[in-house]
Amino acid sequence: MESVIRYTDEPELNKPVLIEGLPGVGNVGKVVADFMADQLGAKHFATVISKHFPPQILIDPSGIAIPATNELYYLKDVGESHLDIIFLLGDFQAVTPDGQFAVCNELMDEVFLKHDVSTVFTLGGYGTGQIVETPRVLGAATDMETKNKLEPYGVSFVPGEPAAGIVGASGVLLGLAQFHGIEGACIMGETSGYFVDYKSACYVLDVMEKLFGVKFDRSDLELKCQQIEELAEKVRTYEASKNKDNLGYIG
Amino acid sequence: MESVIRYTDEPELNKPVLIEGLPGVGNVGKVVADFMADQLGAKHFATVISKHFPPQILIDPSGIAIPATNELYYLKDVGESHLDIIFLLGDFQAVTPDGQFAVCNELMDEVFLKHDVSTVFTLGGYGTGQIVETPRVLGAATDMETKNKLEPYGVSFVPGEPAAGIVGASGVLLGLAQFHGIEGACIMGETSGYFVDYKSACYVLDVMEKLFGVKFDRSDLELKCQQIEELAEKVRTYEASKNKDNLGYIG
Amino acid sequence: MESVIRYTDEPELNKPVLIEGLPGVGNVGKVVADFMADQLGAKHFATVISKHFPPQILIDPSGIAIPATNELYYLKDVGESHLDIIFLLGDFQAVTPDGQFAVCNELMDEVFLKHDVSTVFTLGGYGTGQIVETPRVLGAATDMETKNKLEPYGVSFVPGEPAAGIVGASGVLLGLAQFHGIEGACIMGETSGYFVDYKSACYVLDVMEKLFGVKFDRSDLELKCQQIEELAEKVRTYEASKNKDNLGYIG
Amino acid sequence: MESVIRYTDEPELNKPVLIEGLPGVGNVGKVVADFMADQLGAKHFATVISKHFPPQILIDPSGIAIPATNELYYLKDVGESHLDIIFLLGDFQAVTPDGQFAVCNELMDEVFLKHDVSTVFTLGGYGTGQIVETPRVLGAATDMETKNKLEPYGVSFVPGEPAAGIVGASGVLLGLAQFHGIEGACIMGETSGYFVDYKSACYVLDVMEKLFGVKFDRSDLELKCQQIEELAEKVRTYEASKNKDNLGYIG
Repeated sequence: MESVIRYTDEPELNKPVLIEGLPGVGNVGKVVADFMADQLGAKHFATVISKHFPPQILIDPSGIAIPATNELYYLKDVGESHLDIIFLLGDFQAVTPDGQFAVCNELMDEVFLKHDVSTVFTLGGYGTGQIVETPRVLGAATDMETKNKLEPYGVSFVPGEPAAGIVGASGVLLGLAQFHGIEGACIMGETSGYFVDYKSACYVLDVMEKLFGVKFDRSDLELKCQQIEELAEKVRTYEASKNKDNLGYIG
Repeated sequence: MESVIRYTDEPELNKPVLIEGLPGVGNVGKVVADFMADQLGAKHFATVISKHFPPQILIDPSGIAIPATNELYYLKDVGESHLDIIFLLGDFQAVTPDGQFAVCNELMDEVFLKHDVSTVFTLGGYGTGQIVETPRVLGAATDMETKNKLEPYGVSFVPGEPAAGIVGASGVLLGLAQFHGIEGACIMGETSGYFVDYKSACYVLDVMEKLFGVKFDRSDLELKCQQIEELAEKVRTYEASKNKDNLGYIG
Repeated sequence: MESVIRYTDEPELNKPVLIEGLPGVGNVGKVVADFMADQLGAKHFATVISKHFPPQILIDPSGIAIPATNELYYLKDVGESHLDIIFLLGDFQAVTPDGQFAVCNELMDEVFLKHDVSTVFTLGGYGTGQIVETPRVLGAATDMETKNKLEPYGVSFVPGEPAAGIVGASGVLLGLAQFHGIEGACIMGETSGYFVDYKSACYVLDVMEKLFGVKFDRSDLELKCQQIEELAEKVRTYEASKNKDNLGYIG
Repeated sequence: MESVIRYTDEPELNKPVLIEGLPGVGNVGKVVADFMADQLGAKHFATVISKHFPPQILIDPSGIAIPATNELYYLKDVGESHLDIIFLLGDFQAVTPDGQFAVCNELMDEVFLKHDVSTVFTLGGYGTGQIVETPRVLGAATDMETKNKLEPYGVSFVPGEPAAGIVGASGVLLGLAQFHGIEGACIMGETSGYFVDYKSACYVLDVMEKLFGVKFDRSDLELKCQQIEELAEKVRTYEASKNKDNLGYIG
């Protein structure tokens, strides 16, 4: 095995939904998944290390080592949906293309198929380079049925977006789900990609709330959303004034 | 295993011929193989994913995920040859040199040897950088006997062409066939390499028709060939006028 | 296996402490570990070769080949601590990121866990780019308890140092120790990183002496420390005069 | 396995000597090994393909595919030495550092140890960038005893040469031999490295003749040596005249 999994618990789950929220564009998926797992009190059940993660440790302010890992958490009987959930969280993705596949494939074989995962949601950001007032939530699905189920929840399937497809764990895991006949989708919050986008994460959270029949206390998140909004406003103002100056110069 | 194979069918084949048509120079091999499989009604029997394919999914206009895969199809009792065929098709090749070998070697071990493949034809384009009126069909064979069998069918074996040998799946699979004592050849349509060359594909199809004793309905393909012809004509005209202008400038 | 281990001995060890001293910043860790193993008369018990080490041999002055290896040594009942020690020594680290993990992980599985290692100390240098009078000894630990045990021995845990974390075998092995629930720390001597820092090594040796209740005969080492001190003094003088000249120029 | 070995014969050998002559600096080792195997009528016993060789085929003038392989040949009871020999020959080495090790290590495990190889000679060129009148034959040995045995045969062990050690199959295989307690040496003909050096190969052949108690018919080789000599003379003359001109220019 190219990855090593250490279990801290052995949950009995009933056809759980997998939610993947690893770092990515605007860290949108990570913010959403970390938030959900935290708010809903998800329990840790495994740590994953891998030759494909960066060969290093970080150090927290107390001087304690933080190795490069992914972490697995679970929840049973969530909200009105009564669904079980497995969360794939972490601060790292694999550093090479084949490493991306290797890690996701081993997790699929060793954990997700073993726990009879019924649906796979990979969360991410759709980077546009632009700051938008109202980020859309876009999707890519394993099949038409899943697409039709998600559209009423606010997920838009827009031809040609994202044009470049989906790279990394969010794409690979969805492809593996489809390969194994498991339904699922990548759900992406539109984002500039310039900063950690808490605002875009909020829009994706709207979809998650509907999917699982839960309501989150968003106070912390909303503070961060507001900070992002102010930052975005400053950028928009600055850009606008720059253009005015440019017109002046030409005039 | 570095690749994962999921079977959708378990065909019983009698010493089938393997035809490989993955993306390559001018996509000549891919056009030929996709066309043959489609026209002859080949049946799907396996999907292959691999750590060596790009770690991404593409998305079709409906919003459905297209992972990076190779696909295997089969036919029984084809045309007057009555041969069985396995098609290796797809939109992707492995992204690294060792990945190229790994994928082909695993397919050879897990699928082709298990199905007792008797002959291997890898199809491709021979990129010359020039647009030619009448593309030749060139070959490289595992042994003299196979070369002698193919020459009457219109495959030319020209010393020094291709000078650089054959790189990628078409080369690796042929080398593996030779290694396992299986006869075969790489059959290449001469092409500029600038665009998907339907015209070159037609000349390779001529050889395929003779080899398998079939006649294809080429209406769709011929429309595309004509479009390529018009495009090539435009390029030739433009190049010619450029040269005239240059002479004028010097004069 | 990506590494090959050849045993020259089969020591029976009682919950040994692992000390890793492979090449790194200022080679501080390597100097300390090589010195300790030599002074305490450690016995060789295994040689490790790996596809991840550079594919070459060096040649000693007699014309004898020196392949790329790591070496394992052991000691029983050391000093007043009465601890057993395993030393991981060598002139090479793995040349790729995933190779780093692979080598350390295989050693952890095949050797360290099998010998019931109780504590892991990875030794290294903390490169600052500056030559300091009195190098500090910094640490990163697997857990708070270990941190608290080490501080009285002269190991400083300073928030934000090292800011970039710890890369390579020293970081990976510590992360693996933590992953397997083994306590440990990376102990780093502050160093400029410009040369083999025997002086910084001396300060780390102070900690080792206390940890294991031994006293080393440092005569050889002190000669080298003095040489480093003179070299450092020359550099400081040169830098100072350069600055004076600069001030003169501006003045 | 990352390499695949296909046997064409199953020789019974008695503690054979391994002679490796893969492509390298000046192709000196390859010329010597190919020549010996051919002259002595060595018999083919295995073909090796590997994911680590370039993923391509070359094509011979008849249009027959030449895949990337290494080949194994054997001889029994050679010359006055009465030694058995295994030759490792080919046109390719592995294309990556870890691939170098992987191929050599698998051959060591799967073939050489299984055949109870008693001695390993890896042949190569010692590239100096200079054309010399009388190329020396240099060596690096696994141990002092082997060094002492080889010096009377004309192999020089010069401290500091080669300074950079030995990279590639010649180095890796020798390191592996030493690792497994098998005696051996790398025997290198001094060469400029600019062209296939048949002259340097002749000097290495002198050593081989003494080691195995054989005398080769060198007519073909001597013709090529002479051609190299004439080429080298031209280069020396040209270089000398250039220098004269330079002096004139300065004067």
